[in-house]
Amino acid sequence: MGFVYEVFSQRSQVISHMCDGTMTTTNGTVQQQQRVNKRCLWFEEELEPDLRWVFGVSKILHTGESEFQTIELVESGPFGKVLLLDGKLQSAEADEFVYHESIVHPALLYHSNPKKVFIMGGGEGSTAREVLKHSSVKKVVMCDIDQEVVDFCRSNLIENAEAFSSTRVELVINDARVELENRNEKFDVIIGDLNDPVEGGPCFTLYTHSFYLHIIKAKLNVGGILVTQAGPAGILSHTEVYSSIYNTLRQTFKYVLPYAAHVPSYADTWGWVMASDQAFPTVNIKETDYRIQKRIQGELHFLDGQTLCATLALNKHVRKTLAEETHVYTEDSARFIHGYSSGLKNQN
Amino acid sequence: MGFVYEVFSQRSQVISHMCDGTMTTTNGTVQQQQRVNKRCLWFEEELEPDLRWVFGVSKILHTGESEFQTIELVESGPFGKVLLLDGKLQSAEADEFVYHESIVHPALLYHSNPKKVFIMGGGEGSTAREVLKHSSVKKVVMCDIDQEVVDFCRSNLIENAEAFSSTRVELVINDARVELENRNEKFDVIIGDLNDPVEGGPCFTLYTHSFYLHIIKAKLNVGGILVTQAGPAGILSHTEVYSSIYNTLRQTFKYVLPYAAHVPSYADTWGWVMASDQAFPTVNIKETDYRIQKRIQGELHFLDGQTLCATLALNKHVRKTLAEETHVYTEDSARFIHGYSSGLKNQN
Amino acid sequence: MGFVYEVFSQRSQVISHMCDGTMTTTNGTVQQQQRVNKRCLWFEEELEPDLRWVFGVSKILHTGESEFQTIELVESGPFGKVLLLDGKLQSAEADEFVYHESIVHPALLYHSNPKKVFIMGGGEGSTAREVLKHSSVKKVVMCDIDQEVVDFCRSNLIENAEAFSSTRVELVINDARVELENRNEKFDVIIGDLNDPVEGGPCFTLYTHSFYLHIIKAKLNVGGILVTQAGPAGILSHTEVYSSIYNTLRQTFKYVLPYAAHVPSYADTWGWVMASDQAFPTVNIKETDYRIQKRIQGELHFLDGQTLCATLALNKHVRKTLAEETHVYTEDSARFIHGYSSGLKNQN
Amino acid sequence: MGFVYEVFSQRSQVISHMCDGTMTTTNGTVQQQQRVNKRCLWFEEELEPDLRWVFGVSKILHTGESEFQTIELVESGPFGKVLLLDGKLQSAEADEFVYHESIVHPALLYHSNPKKVFIMGGGEGSTAREVLKHSSVKKVVMCDIDQEVVDFCRSNLIENAEAFSSTRVELVINDARVELENRNEKFDVIIGDLNDPVEGGPCFTLYTHSFYLHIIKAKLNVGGILVTQAGPAGILSHTEVYSSIYNTLRQTFKYVLPYAAHVPSYADTWGWVMASDQAFPTVNIKETDYRIQKRIQGELHFLDGQTLCATLALNKHVRKTLAEETHVYTEDSARFIHGYSSGLKNQN
Repeated sequence: MGFVYEVFSQRSQVISHMCDGTMTTTNGTVQQQQRVNKRCLWFEEELEPDLRWVFGVSKILHTGESEFQTIELVESGPFGKVLLLDGKLQSAEADEFVYHESIVHPALLYHSNPKKVFIMGGGEGSTAREVLKHSSVKKVVMCDIDQEVVDFCRSNLIENAEAFSSTRVELVINDARVELENRNEKFDVIIGDLNDPVEGGPCFTLYTHSFYLHIIKAKLNVGGILVTQAGPAGILSHTEVYSSIYNTLRQTFKYVLPYAAHVPSYADTWGWVMASDQAFPTVNIKETDYRIQKRIQGELHFLDGQTLCATLALNKHVRKTLAEETHVYTEDSARFIHGYSSGLKNQN
Repeated sequence: MGFVYEVFSQRSQVISHMCDGTMTTTNGTVQQQQRVNKRCLWFEEELEPDLRWVFGVSKILHTGESEFQTIELVESGPFGKVLLLDGKLQSAEADEFVYHESIVHPALLYHSNPKKVFIMGGGEGSTAREVLKHSSVKKVVMCDIDQEVVDFCRSNLIENAEAFSSTRVELVINDARVELENRNEKFDVIIGDLNDPVEGGPCFTLYTHSFYLHIIKAKLNVGGILVTQAGPAGILSHTEVYSSIYNTLRQTFKYVLPYAAHVPSYADTWGWVMASDQAFPTVNIKETDYRIQKRIQGELHFLDGQTLCATLALNKHVRKTLAEETHVYTEDSARFIHGYSSGLKNQN
Repeated sequence: MGFVYEVFSQRSQVISHMCDGTMTTTNGTVQQQQRVNKRCLWFEEELEPDLRWVFGVSKILHTGESEFQTIELVESGPFGKVLLLDGKLQSAEADEFVYHESIVHPALLYHSNPKKVFIMGGGEGSTAREVLKHSSVKKVVMCDIDQEVVDFCRSNLIENAEAFSSTRVELVINDARVELENRNEKFDVIIGDLNDPVEGGPCFTLYTHSFYLHIIKAKLNVGGILVTQAGPAGILSHTEVYSSIYNTLRQTFKYVLPYAAHVPSYADTWGWVMASDQAFPTVNIKETDYRIQKRIQGELHFLDGQTLCATLALNKHVRKTLAEETHVYTEDSARFIHGYSSGLKNQN
Repeated sequence: MGFVYEVFSQRSQVISHMCDGTMTTTNGTVQQQQRVNKRCLWFEEELEPDLRWVFGVSKILHTGESEFQTIELVESGPFGKVLLLDGKLQSAEADEFVYHESIVHPALLYHSNPKKVFIMGGGEGSTAREVLKHSSVKKVVMCDIDQEVVDFCRSNLIENAEAFSSTRVELVINDARVELENRNEKFDVIIGDLNDPVEGGPCFTLYTHSFYLHIIKAKLNVGGILVTQAGPAGILSHTEVYSSIYNTLRQTFKYVLPYAAHVPSYADTWGWVMASDQAFPTVNIKETDYRIQKRIQGELHFLDGQTLCATLALNKHVRKTLAEETHVYTEDSARFIHGYSSGLKNQN
């Protein structure tokens, strides 16, 4: 995992990545860099109809296409290697550790002794990589619907190679809902590392009340925890789907913990929600640091006791919205974030 | 201040703001909205040489120009009214409360009894507006170098009209350094609501060790606190100037507290630093909420005890960088963030 | 009309127009110019779904809105003042003479003695301005549906002030079809200075076979000529509507002459078509230059005998398409160019 | 050469090229197409500091890099396959025939019996392809400095495969000036299919008076013709370098013919100049069509007698500038068009 440390110093390095794939030496002048920067490829993501996030692309590393979506790995200027699914930024070399540490470790640290983990989605492999850092975990089922995404990431994301080849990982290509229904076993932690709910996309049914109630709860062991990514949670964007996913879980589970962190390459603060029918233990800063030290092999770069405390402390305005949210996410009342499905075959 | 509440529901409202200034009625279909969105003005800020933040502009509300910079107030799609200085986004109606509550209230709440406050910069008026919410404050000196910016904001930002006309505010047009040197009085809190240090810009000398040591410290009362905006503090951007400003203050004051919050319209997490020669009191969540209730007239929308706790808890990676930072900001070793001065007359 | 000569040297001048409205002096270095250019407003026109024409806007000069469309006059970097209707570039100071000389003079020069001219549309005033250069013309009816556009241009386009106040001009605010039907008089030349036919836009019925057959032909004097703008006529774009408008006129009139010229600010070659039931005279280069000298007061800057010859000589590929075109433009079989109507009240 | 005909119907076809490389079937609705179009890669060329030409890129087909420049072949939305050198559009599948027919056929048709042709540059192969259509031509020397560009195009541009393998073609990798100097033979036509003169670029010395006088004239047979591409020749852009190159040739040769045509993918009208010390024969429309029929094998798609006549008939304004131009292009007084060299090793 030397990967993560390398990217820490990336901001200054990438200035010398030229948009056309050339590199200036470190003694290249600013003038030289600007020259070459003038003409190049740009990746543009439309966050809202009139808000664009645009970054220079120096190289298309790999491209692929599955029956569900297009797959691209590009070398970006500001964020290093970037994985795009259906043209939407999924994760970036420079800050993917923020997202993946956040979706995995809080739930596993809150659980008293997580042994079996089920990952819905997660075909990129990074979520499994983080789960495997927990020495208590004996088995990780990683269930992604898209064989090509899995193959693509296994081949091209070297930082996850170890995870893909771990004997503790069981990789299944299937619809997560069908896979959970068909399995006889239960899990300590189920992780929803899913695409955002976009109109026409494959995933929105995996955020619904009935899915949580009938499928997820039935497959959690006593004391089990569900954690799901829950869309943008910024002070301007948390009403799109985050507050609704939070409230839907609140209507389904006894105990619910929302949390959030800013992920620069997403151009927003991102949200996750943990849910359980058993009360979450008091895990203060010291206890968190202790558990990390005791349970985790390898180092975390974003999360520690103090950081976890901060991610759980949503600001006053967001907390107010969440408290007052009444919308429950069902198949008939789904909310979507801005975005588009490719129109390729969808999951449901 | 009804202003702030209005913008809370803005995200959904603004979808119906058309780029050409028209409005679709709420029963206008999505198709109609997309049609009109197709052609319009866009504001583009180059955050880095190959990273752009681009939003639709539906209307140019007011434009001006001073001897230092150009001034524009535009109606944006995603962020409501936006103030631009030298073409750089200064503050946006939709989320300016995050920045201004953050730069003002922590220092004033940590101080035992703030009576006199000096604002370096702050010509927009929002910082004074927040300071005036503290009933203990008897006098606010707001010292901006740019008469035109002040006049422009006084005329066009209705939400700050009350602040501009407050009898507790003394408005001075001057170089903040000169003004502080020439005054015989001292202050309880000095707030650096300054432009970012950009190459060729007017402000970078107000971030230097010698300025803090010789000017600021001499003008703080016993127990006084300096707080300054300190540039982008995201996990990828905090090494540009934030860690350096933090370390410079650490070399100058006995006690230093860095904190940060995500400001969506800046497309980044933003950083501030408090510094004092007297230890900061222990202000836990409860005590913060108590002080807010006791001291502040009007309501805060972003900050409360829990939020303040979270903004102070920087993540593991940023804390590590800050701890290890050795760069001291001097006039000869200044660091700059990406950006450009207009080439109009500069402050220094 | 000193206007036109001024813009001839514009290309080099405008380099010093800064996007934020500032000007660098002529001894400002290139470096200084680039600095300021970094942040600014951009106008973006989507020519096709994946083709954009984007230019810097240094100033919004005037904005307005009618019941039909939005109206803006902006100062652009590369094209001087630009008039936008519904966010679509209508004409630019730097090269509007190409369009307006082309739509007016060929028909008037081919006519033996044009006295009465009817302009459909043309609210900008530039077409009337060119018509008035012909000393034979006694009366110009300029019929635009949009009072606000007319008022806006009369107030803000000083180069057309003389035309608006000419005693030879009769300005009518009406639907051109209704106006022509209701008038008892006939005209020597009818000019279609209309918006492009875009879906949902007000104008497409003024390009149909039935309109030409029943309205236009009935209102042309013997020997009368219709000339209409006919959309993009580039080697890649002439099949959008140009070939169809040409063929529709060919099915309606005995003699039809298509011609075209590159208009830089449109990012394309533009097309016009003349049509008449009387054979066009042989007007060679010499004869054209002679007629210009004899009939026209003031100078033309784009057109002369040689230029007219070139605009009439379409290239081999476009001629082939036109010859083979079978589509006839009717209300039921309309073709549209890419673009969007504002959804404001339409003409028909 | 079936290639060219295919692209004629491209405008409508390409609408179904999706930016992410997928294709919608022809019965895919417009709505589906717009959805997928929302997120993608864009190619942006800065034509001037505040003028951008931006098109969607659906696929990066091939990339390479030489010691002089970067090389990319991309699949674009509006223009089919596009060849980029140093990130600058060189030629596009959809309209390259306009440029290449224009640079080759006028000179060869004006020459009484062209047998030996020298191409300076032209590594793409398209210029040679057009020259080879002339049955009189026995030998084409194609001299490009960049081995990698030649290899790249030979491998990837199937439409030029035949030209690259023709026994009449002698391919040389060398500096064109050096190659011409070292050869003992003379040529009937020398073609300058060169990069634009950009600051720091490899080519500007091949546009100078001394180069024309000492090298070119010495290597032309009696009656020989030089033709060179001469940069943008639009009504707003012809003063950048076109008028200067024209005047430089006028100072060097007895007879000079400038001509121009709009090339859509260049977003401008493009210019070429022919020069000779022997008077050009009178080649009217009929004679041109006769020579084409007699001499050329295969079909031309852009040029015929009428089109050639039109390209030679520059408009009044451009003719005026050219007539009055006094600048002579020397190494010390070079003019450049906006653009940037990669900073890789240059030719001179």
